[in-house]
Amino acid sequence: MLTPPFPPLVLTQGDPSSIAPEITVKAWQNLHHSGPVFVWIGDPTLLASSIPIQLVETIEEGKRIFTQALPVLPISLMAPAIAGQPCVDNAACVLESIYLATTLTLNGHACAMVTNPISKDILHRAGFQHPGHTSYLAELCHVPGQEVMMLVSSFLHPPLRVVPLTEHVSLRKAIDQITPELIILKARAVIHGLIRDFGLSHTPRLAIAALNPHAGENGLMGDEEQTIISPAIERLRSEGFIISDPLPADTLFTQEARQLYDVVLCMYHDQALIPIKTLDMAHSVNVTLGLPIIRTSPDHGTAFSLARESAKKNVGQSQADSRSLEAALHLAAQLSCHKATSTRYYSSLKS
Amino acid sequence: MLTPPFPPLVLTQGDPSSIAPEITVKAWQNLHHSGPVFVWIGDPTLLASSIPIQLVETIEEGKRIFTQALPVLPISLMAPAIAGQPCVDNAACVLESIYLATTLTLNGHACAMVTNPISKDILHRAGFQHPGHTSYLAELCHVPGQEVMMLVSSFLHPPLRVVPLTEHVSLRKAIDQITPELIILKARAVIHGLIRDFGLSHTPRLAIAALNPHAGENGLMGDEEQTIISPAIERLRSEGFIISDPLPADTLFTQEARQLYDVVLCMYHDQALIPIKTLDMAHSVNVTLGLPIIRTSPDHGTAFSLARESAKKNVGQSQADSRSLEAALHLAAQLSCHKATSTRYYSSLKS
Repeated sequence: MLTPPFPPLVLTQGDPSSIAPEITVKAWQNLHHSGPVFVWIGDPTLLASSIPIQLVETIEEGKRIFTQALPVLPISLMAPAIAGQPCVDNAACVLESIYLATTLTLNGHACAMVTNPISKDILHRAGFQHPGHTSYLAELCHVPGQEVMMLVSSFLHPPLRVVPLTEHVSLRKAIDQITPELIILKARAVIHGLIRDFGLSHTPRLAIAALNPHAGENGLMGDEEQTIISPAIERLRSEGFIISDPLPADTLFTQEARQLYDVVLCMYHDQALIPIKTLDMAHSVNVTLGLPIIRTSPDHGTAFSLARESAKKNVGQSQADSRSLEAALHLAAQLSCHKATSTRYYSSLKS
Repeated sequence: MLTPPFPPLVLTQGDPSSIAPEITVKAWQNLHHSGPVFVWIGDPTLLASSIPIQLVETIEEGKRIFTQALPVLPISLMAPAIAGQPCVDNAACVLESIYLATTLTLNGHACAMVTNPISKDILHRAGFQHPGHTSYLAELCHVPGQEVMMLVSSFLHPPLRVVPLTEHVSLRKAIDQITPELIILKARAVIHGLIRDFGLSHTPRLAIAALNPHAGENGLMGDEEQTIISPAIERLRSEGFIISDPLPADTLFTQEARQLYDVVLCMYHDQALIPIKTLDMAHSVNVTLGLPIIRTSPDHGTAFSLARESAKKNVGQSQADSRSLEAALHLAAQLSCHKATSTRYYSSLKS
């Protein structure tokens, strides 16, 4: 296995009653010869019966042992984890794993962080105030409100990257939240993220999905394209960015159309997630742009019912699919290489 | 070529300045040996220089000559057709073609009708009152308001069929239009259409797409699933239909998910059209359910700019893609076979 000149990745525990332990085991089984190297922060009892693990005190140690055992930076659950039955008593441990992973990545001990799925519902019941991982990470990184969720499938050619302008709100609220300011803010963050982290060899081309069918057909079916989206596009173009007109979303994701952009800014959650999950759900990865660190995660949830089913089966018969987590680990490793390169490049320009 | 015991299909002219003439020529070139047999209703001057055509007085004549020439039931344009420059003077001719095709199909002279793309804008300027083809056809067939637009790709396995509950309105208006009554009305029409026309060998399974991300996550992101969609589902189930819960739209179109239903009722235009066009834009076909006749059309518009480009090139170099029209012709032929069979079956039950 090639050992890159970077520290390992760090992977969070996720909800202990979810499929997170199972996909972590599978990811190590599939990656321990090839890499990328990752250290898991979680309660060792969750994995110990499935694969060889080795407790570590530092992330750096993970490099040496990864081919033989999964390196584990141990933390402790407060209650036994029962597959499929999430427990509010374990919320603190879930959050501790995220906190530690973020701190270690911010301090450069890990090159990037990958997060396993969590239950927002359980965390909220334990008093967690954030709508999910992403805004919590932005707060920990001291960049609140600057986080941008991007979904990436690197297995498509060209890779498909989509960004929902609005996220986990009702469709009605999503429409209300669309403003020129938000489009400008997110578009800038997306383009800067593509330049810094994705190593694009050309200026990123950003396609903008229209809100209404047929892009509103000149106002016949909604005027947000004219009153909100186009003014934002004009502003962004005046800053030198390469931005499309608001394009009808139904024809924006064909093989042919996908050649013409590097990323699509979509107006709402399903507009972004329907095409990428339809084309390649198994390998689509969630990337958070706008943070000072690299963070990816598998593009699925806790799947408690699947975890319950898997627990009834023997090892090797379990159901959860680790491909999205593995893709998230691979992408995090790639992005941290690009980031290191572009950061060194920019630093050399400054010095 | 097998000659089925049915009359030919009838194909409308569509907008004479659009890609309709070009794709009609290509469709005949590709289908004249294999079928299905179709008769085109349009101005002969639009096609005469490209392929052999033969004027006919009845649809039935088309059968005999289709392998040698495209059978044309002639009507006359009022103004010369310039590719890419639609002209309001020709609106009457466009409508005449649709009117004749509908009447001939209603009377059994054609087994089904296929419509080429039209410009709603041009027709509206000429005083046409309908939002598009479909409601005009419903009026001609004396079933106003009962028409249902379905998109079908028969080239996917299993075939993908999607129905947008709301159609060519802004996304805001679409949300306002969603009611339990509309869901019940459309779901019934879709299921009856699948039974009568599609020849399914089992009871149709209808999946319902949720409006909000994650199907609203128990009301956390919108409550339409609970207040509007689920009551409609309960009602439909009480009538014996096989209907899903409201399902998150982003994971509803994966290869795995598509095995579990025969058709999806989507809440708005792009929710239905993004997945089908992303997966198979070339072969997706528009089918109108709820009419006493079979009607299909290619799933694209007039493409005036492409028509302008094509006109500059030599024959054989033109750009427009006729695969969707050909798929529409094939599907119309298949559906008319199924319809004839099921109608005979139902008639025999009644007698």
